[in-house]
Amino acid sequence: MKLAVVGAGAVGLAVVELATEYSHTVTAVADSSTGAVDEDGLDSATVLERKRDEGHVGSGTPEDVLESNYDVLVEATPTTLGDAQPAFGHIRRALDRDRHVVLANKGPVAERYHDLRAREHESEGTVRFEATVGGAIPVLSTIENVGPEHVTAVRGVLNGTANFILSRMADEGLAYEHVLAEAQDIGVAETDPSFDVDGTDAALKCAILANVLTGEEHTLADVNVTGIQEIPPSALELAQQDGSTIRLVGEVSEGSVSVGPRLVNENGALAVRGTQNIVQFETRYAGTLNSSGRGAGGHETASAIMSDLRYLED
Amino acid sequence: MKLAVVGAGAVGLAVVELATEYSHTVTAVADSSTGAVDEDGLDSATVLERKRDEGHVGSGTPEDVLESNYDVLVEATPTTLGDAQPAFGHIRRALDRDRHVVLANKGPVAERYHDLRAREHESEGTVRFEATVGGAIPVLSTIENVGPEHVTAVRGVLNGTANFILSRMADEGLAYEHVLAEAQDIGVAETDPSFDVDGTDAALKCAILANVLTGEEHTLADVNVTGIQEIPPSALELAQQDGSTIRLVGEVSEGSVSVGPRLVNENGALAVRGTQNIVQFETRYAGTLNSSGRGAGGHETASAIMSDLRYLED
Repeated sequence: MKLAVVGAGAVGLAVVELATEYSHTVTAVADSSTGAVDEDGLDSATVLERKRDEGHVGSGTPEDVLESNYDVLVEATPTTLGDAQPAFGHIRRALDRDRHVVLANKGPVAERYHDLRAREHESEGTVRFEATVGGAIPVLSTIENVGPEHVTAVRGVLNGTANFILSRMADEGLAYEHVLAEAQDIGVAETDPSFDVDGTDAALKCAILANVLTGEEHTLADVNVTGIQEIPPSALELAQQDGSTIRLVGEVSEGSVSVGPRLVNENGALAVRGTQNIVQFETRYAGTLNSSGRGAGGHETASAIMSDLRYLED
Repeated sequence: MKLAVVGAGAVGLAVVELATEYSHTVTAVADSSTGAVDEDGLDSATVLERKRDEGHVGSGTPEDVLESNYDVLVEATPTTLGDAQPAFGHIRRALDRDRHVVLANKGPVAERYHDLRAREHESEGTVRFEATVGGAIPVLSTIENVGPEHVTAVRGVLNGTANFILSRMADEGLAYEHVLAEAQDIGVAETDPSFDVDGTDAALKCAILANVLTGEEHTLADVNVTGIQEIPPSALELAQQDGSTIRLVGEVSEGSVSVGPRLVNENGALAVRGTQNIVQFETRYAGTLNSSGRGAGGHETASAIMSDLRYLED
């Protein structure tokens, strides 16, 4: 299919890099201020090189990209809260033209679910967003397979940065600030790590899960969120003496949506290590299913986007 | 959709029991010698009761069921090797009439993959078989999502009975024969446990995985199989001293397909306990994905069948 990729961060560029391997053609790419369009297919190496060396993707504008002729818009701009703009506007324009949309951006699904579904309903296009929850892990497709009405609860470790910090604190007995600095040094935490450590990122993912499971609209404001910044090393030590550890767990269950530090069995499924994510599905007839893997990363997230594209082709 | 269920063991009966919850109608059911057909939908409670109390599903014949008017044939007779009959004949008749087929029976996919695909190719019907590998765990749909060409290896614990026995032997230091008798007592192992303990069941699942991953035909004869019957408790003790344990691991990787006892990290993903199964997917761009859950059971397997039915509806 012909892809227009909006957003040229790690995810957008990974989509450009991998598209041909999945038999797709990238016909347009935009970053926040420039754009490149070629209906016969852009040369991915050229685009990636230009972005790296010159800081832009082309000599056109983002507007050229939105107006170009494509089959699927891949929305990979940074997640924004509230009105979820400019992503929501990009999606709306694509759906108005009866094009499909695949999202890596969590904002529109977490903050404006009903608006999004209403726009989709009026369009011939379909909206997919596997990449918004759990990176490479097939989370939403598992819910789709089991049937949302047969999934009674979903819980999981949904933020790799927070999990890296908690794993290191537990292993080394180090304080939060120390491990955070270390994580920033090696690129696992961002300069402003708030979204990851205060639970916002995991909460957005939980809002998305709640939306998919119930069909009702949940936003960040509906999630009961506690971050990991206040956890002292002594709490992790106490947990360890009891065969437990602490993880930042998000949960959607019986109408409640929450994210917070939870005691979990040290050898249990939820005690994934480092930047790994895990999702547990409680189902009515199939028991508990666990799925774990890399929850972030350009290639990993692009891989989830490719699985949405495969679905749209069928 | 209208389902004709062939085979009235735990899986077939679970399909009959759950179908209406998934908005399907069971219009025909057969066991090995009787059949029941009602184009308006059979009453599932009546069928289940009759099978339990009188040992048959109805006053008709299996032939009536195969000839009845249905959308999807659910093949849930016991797995047979070699020519995979009578299942293969049932499937062939359904495909000749352009009907879909959903399999719980491993035989036709593991032993006659090319024949099966050739028949499907000539039919308007589609063949799906998620239930043949890993019970409730979404194994084949994960491969479909990632794209078989981007999965470089699959390995896993694919037989719950063998895993139960190994877990108990390790935990209690007991001999194989002792734990096997215990497993038979509680219904985890069958009276003739050979398929589970000699690795045949896991090998059939690996042949299916290899078929799906490569498109080339692999049968049981192509799998290098070793069972768990010869493992002494001392081997498990030695492993434990090293932080390891032994699991019956099936693996499809670089053209080779094998099943055998393997040393795995005691706290690693492959060291699932009891009757749990786990599947690890090595992917080109999404790292390693792990999926675990119940690998057997009527409801669990029926749940996988329901996910195939959902796919056929789309």
